[in-house]
This record gives sequence, C-alpha cells and structure tokens, in this order.
Amino acid sequence: MAMAGEKNRLISADKVEGTAVYNAKGEDLGHISEIMIDKVSGEVAYAVLKYGSVMGMGGKLFALPWDILKYNTRFGGYVVDIPEERLKNAPSFDADNPPDMADPSWNKQIHDYYGSSATWYEKA
Amino acid sequence: MAMAGEKNRLISADKVEGTAVYNAKGEDLGHISEIMIDKVSGEVAYAVLKYGSVMGMGGKLFALPWDILKYNTRFGGYVVDIPEERLKNAPSFDADNPPDMADPSWNKQIHDYYGSSATWYEKA
Repeated sequence: MAMAGEKNRLISADKVEGTAVYNAKGEDLGHISEIMIDKVSGEVAYAVLKYGSVMGMGGKLFALPWDILKYNTRFGGYVVDIPEERLKNAPSFDADNPPDMADPSWNKQIHDYYGSSATWYEKA
Repeated sequence: MAMAGEKNRLISADKVEGTAVYNAKGEDLGHISEIMIDKVSGEVAYAVLKYGSVMGMGGKLFALPWDILKYNTRFGGYVVDIPEERLKNAPSFDADNPPDMADPSWNKQIHDYYGSSATWYEKA
C-alpha cells in the first residue's frame, strides 16, 4: 500500500524495510531488514541494517539508531554518514544470536557509538 | 526474526503487523495491516487497522493513533477501548483511496476522535 501521506512526513514501515543503505561515498552497504519500535515512548528505536557483501561482513546485522539515517533522493536510499572504519567496527550481531535490546547499557552503547541524540531508552 | 529485546520494551514492526485487534469486550475487530512512521519526530504515528467482517465494514481501514492501542496478554492482541458506536463511526478509508496523511487537520481530526494525546503532527 502506498499512502498519500508518504510523500511527505509519514512512511510505511513496510516501505522502509528493504530500502538500501549507503555510506557517504554512495557505496551500497546493504538494506534495512527490520524496524524496531520502543513500546514505552512510541518512538522508532532502530532500523536494523543487514549488510551486503562489503567489508567481509555479509549478512551481519547492525542496529542503527533511527535518527542517524538520512534519506537521500539521489541514491534512492538511506545514507549513514560515519567514517568507513568506524562503521566497520560497529557492534554487529547474527540473526540467531541477537543482543538483549532490553538492556539500557546496550542501548546507550549503540547510541553513543553512532553519536545519536535519541534518548528513548532512558525513559521509564 | 524474534529479537531478545521484544519481550521487554522493543518490538519489531513486522511482529505488530498481523496482530489481532479487539474491542474492550474482547470481540475481534480485525488486524494491524500497516505501521506508519512520522519521519519528522521519529514516532510511530499510526497502526492501520484492517477490519474483519464485523459491523458490516469488512476490509475497511482505520488509522489508529499508536498510543490508543494497548496490548492485552489474555487476548493475545491489541485492545482499543472505545465504545462500539464510536468506533463504528470512526473515519475509515479504502486501500485504493487513502487520505492525505500529510494534512495536519486530518491528523488532528483523527487524534481528537480517538482521544489520543500524541502531538507529533504539530511538530515542524
């Protein structure tokens, strides 16, 4: 379904999933495999990036704080503007061995790593 | 994918979609067909309810403000606690004729109708 509002400020989670993710150079990193919602605040917590074959990390999952993803109309996908080496060393996980996303310290670590200003995980 | 955090405060949008929705009496109204995200605030704006066959409105879509949905472990689905008559007269639409969700007055009308306290649509 493509709703009228999508062209402006609303977007379907289904549409975000599958969208390509690029680095600042425009290199294809992979795609969004999942959207994680924080039930307490009602905020989108993470867009989970599934890596492609780059950097020898194919299939690895990265929980990206929603606010660090910027949609780029030229690329037709999201851009994560952090240095390649920093992204390469970011916390990642496998689908069959996910982190405990309920752990506030895990959430803080991820947000600090990417320089996200989101604070939903600090709310009770 | 069922992530560890889901048992606590995080949930996958994929898991929300398809989940049943009940009224306060426990009557099955339908299921969530789509999650709409507000790109400006990063908040979940709506869970779109696709009606079942009840009330002669099968297949109709209702944009429910996220904060009016309460998960009920006994029913194993979301409960929308508003009177049946009020729900029956709520604004609805067809998939092939969606409303302009970018229109602030449409958003305000929906939020007022359900008594939602969400204010994302007022943020610039």
